[in-house]
Amino acid sequence: MTSNLRIDIDRLWASLMESAEIGRTPRGGLRRLALSREDGQARRLFKTWCEGAGLSLRVDAMGNMFATRRGRDPNAKAIMMASHLDTQIFGGRFDGVLGVLGALEVARTLNDHGVETRHPLIVANWTNEEGARFEPAMIGSKVFAGFHDVNDALDIRDKEGARFGDALRDIGFAGTDALRPDDLDSYFELHIEQGPELDERGLKVGVVTGAYDIRFLVVEVGGESSHSGATRLTDRRNAMVGAAHVVTAVDEIGMGHARTGARCACGRITVEPNLLGAVAHRAEVLCDFRHGDPAVTQQMVDAFRARFAGIEAKSRCKLTVLREWKYGGEPYDATLAALVRDTSAALGHASMDMLTAAGHDSMNVARVVPSVMIFTPCEKGITHNESENVTREDIEPAVNVLLHAVLKRDRDAE
Amino acid sequence: MTSNLRIDIDRLWASLMESAEIGRTPRGGLRRLALSREDGQARRLFKTWCEGAGLSLRVDAMGNMFATRRGRDPNAKAIMMASHLDTQIFGGRFDGVLGVLGALEVARTLNDHGVETRHPLIVANWTNEEGARFEPAMIGSKVFAGFHDVNDALDIRDKEGARFGDALRDIGFAGTDALRPDDLDSYFELHIEQGPELDERGLKVGVVTGAYDIRFLVVEVGGESSHSGATRLTDRRNAMVGAAHVVTAVDEIGMGHARTGARCACGRITVEPNLLGAVAHRAEVLCDFRHGDPAVTQQMVDAFRARFAGIEAKSRCKLTVLREWKYGGEPYDATLAALVRDTSAALGHASMDMLTAAGHDSMNVARVVPSVMIFTPCEKGITHNESENVTREDIEPAVNVLLHAVLKRDRDAE
Repeated sequence: MTSNLRIDIDRLWASLMESAEIGRTPRGGLRRLALSREDGQARRLFKTWCEGAGLSLRVDAMGNMFATRRGRDPNAKAIMMASHLDTQIFGGRFDGVLGVLGALEVARTLNDHGVETRHPLIVANWTNEEGARFEPAMIGSKVFAGFHDVNDALDIRDKEGARFGDALRDIGFAGTDALRPDDLDSYFELHIEQGPELDERGLKVGVVTGAYDIRFLVVEVGGESSHSGATRLTDRRNAMVGAAHVVTAVDEIGMGHARTGARCACGRITVEPNLLGAVAHRAEVLCDFRHGDPAVTQQMVDAFRARFAGIEAKSRCKLTVLREWKYGGEPYDATLAALVRDTSAALGHASMDMLTAAGHDSMNVARVVPSVMIFTPCEKGITHNESENVTREDIEPAVNVLLHAVLKRDRDAE
Repeated sequence: MTSNLRIDIDRLWASLMESAEIGRTPRGGLRRLALSREDGQARRLFKTWCEGAGLSLRVDAMGNMFATRRGRDPNAKAIMMASHLDTQIFGGRFDGVLGVLGALEVARTLNDHGVETRHPLIVANWTNEEGARFEPAMIGSKVFAGFHDVNDALDIRDKEGARFGDALRDIGFAGTDALRPDDLDSYFELHIEQGPELDERGLKVGVVTGAYDIRFLVVEVGGESSHSGATRLTDRRNAMVGAAHVVTAVDEIGMGHARTGARCACGRITVEPNLLGAVAHRAEVLCDFRHGDPAVTQQMVDAFRARFAGIEAKSRCKLTVLREWKYGGEPYDATLAALVRDTSAALGHASMDMLTAAGHDSMNVARVVPSVMIFTPCEKGITHNESENVTREDIEPAVNVLLHAVLKRDRDAE
């Protein structure tokens, strides 16, 4: 009987705190950019822990790390539990890390009690989930899922011109092992919510039934360079002014749908030449529209485009959408979501169904493998911030839900 | 009789075109940042020309170049004609360069006709007028005028961390000669207008009677870093949104006074971390308010500050003025302005009185030496732009006005 199994929260917490020393910022956050020296150090620590738990590690060409706990049935597909060890520039200690070390804790708990599973279990770390150094984000899982060419990905450069593939080799994690989506039975990703819903309700488990529809548009603002003293205001085509109107438009459109959960932002603005004395001749704004209902996301994007003419008239600049892409917008596997919901109830934890508005590797994996996410609360929903915080009590229930959902899936799946 | 003297426009044009090869951009502009290799090259060419004209060159600790044509009276103070050889990143061929080479042409013309002056004449090149590489702009003349410490100036760093003093030494123009404001009788600066007024009116000479009142404010927008997907819109403190409202406010306030000649802009915006996925925790906007009437400039700055509360409410960010400084706002020497006006009329060139809305070294010098500027038209007022343009016909009249105004000053001054 495994129903009384519980993870060892003290051991998990100790591992989280040990991880939090690698790339620790003065204010207690983490700065562990993908493929940095700190990422390499965190990966080596994770490798040591995996070996200590008897898992066999494979690393693929993207540096994705797959640590396998052998199953009874040589023909059974693997159940994967994964997330990421990299962070934002001013990141927290739990975003991503909890999902990897929580999965490791599940494996350790099974070891403690000598529990065999029929399916192999894989504890995985995806490379470059955050995209804070190399863009785009979630590229490791995207290549794994077959939506991005591996060689293109290895050729990505960071702002300093460093090549992804070279940086990966430098930290010693350019592997040659291969794993395919077809090798997986199912995919579970444990993560902090990164929003305040669970924390405000005092709930410890979120059943993530799907992902927000996320749309990105890169808007170019074409102006004309001139002298910012001598040129008459009415003669200017100031790209900085055009870009500012883009930013406020995105914010206003988002606020119009805030009540139904819209999330909009401009992630990045670049202005050229961005110099005192010079009217900007060009700007670029990365715009980000998110809503749980793809129809509303579309409505917001349409409203945004409809504002272009007005912004062009006000700023005398030309607006052009240079690139456009999307994530999410699809439900996760309903069977797995029900499994997580029921498991939580069986363990005595009230849960709520929710969508993720943040991007996760699960969005890539869900398109090729039955997937689900489990959220824990995080303090006030603060994340991508050095003061991101959770308590032992916040996370213990969801890690136990992960453990038992995986065990149940192991029994139920083919 | 010197009244029939005229400068040699072909020689001046040839010198301008030779200068335009140093740092030439593919689109025919100039990129000759202060203390760059190209700046060094342009300085060496200027030095050769000065020596060829029998001028004796002195270079001070800031790299300011003073080429003296000896006068008859050893006790007479010098009359200076100056501007700058450095350019913006996407600069034109005439901004600054015309003032230096026009002054050189005056000396050459006097040489051609064996004209002696009582006062020494100094043809000068100020270091780093543009401030496109090392901030602040106009630092060479500012140190000369005694408003900035020389050692502080030499310690200024560019974006790559290069030190002003080191860069100056590297191009071979860290001098040890000294010149003081007290050594000067008067200061003339010839420059393209950088606005469209003269060009539109078909006038060739602008009598610059004073400088716009120019106010700079660096505004910090304090937000809070969070996840741009997961954080509810109403919970965000997005510094990028706050900064965008600052930019549109400056533009709107300026447009409200556009009819009376206001010039306002945000020269630079920096957003942190400026990354997809992260709500910006901090931004900085450099705001620039200019008007010919200091009372209106003050009114605009007051209106801007009055908007802070509204922007703070909309963006939930905190606005703080980190630094504030000013240029101009003072009339140039009325006697010299009348001299330029009368000289222009005597030469048969209709002129107009005007203010400069652009910053010039004359603004620093005018505070310690009687000063005036002479403007030539420039095509459509386009400047700080590779397509900046003038014709021989546009500039010849004003250079002759410079010549004769200087000669008259030489006769009239003590």
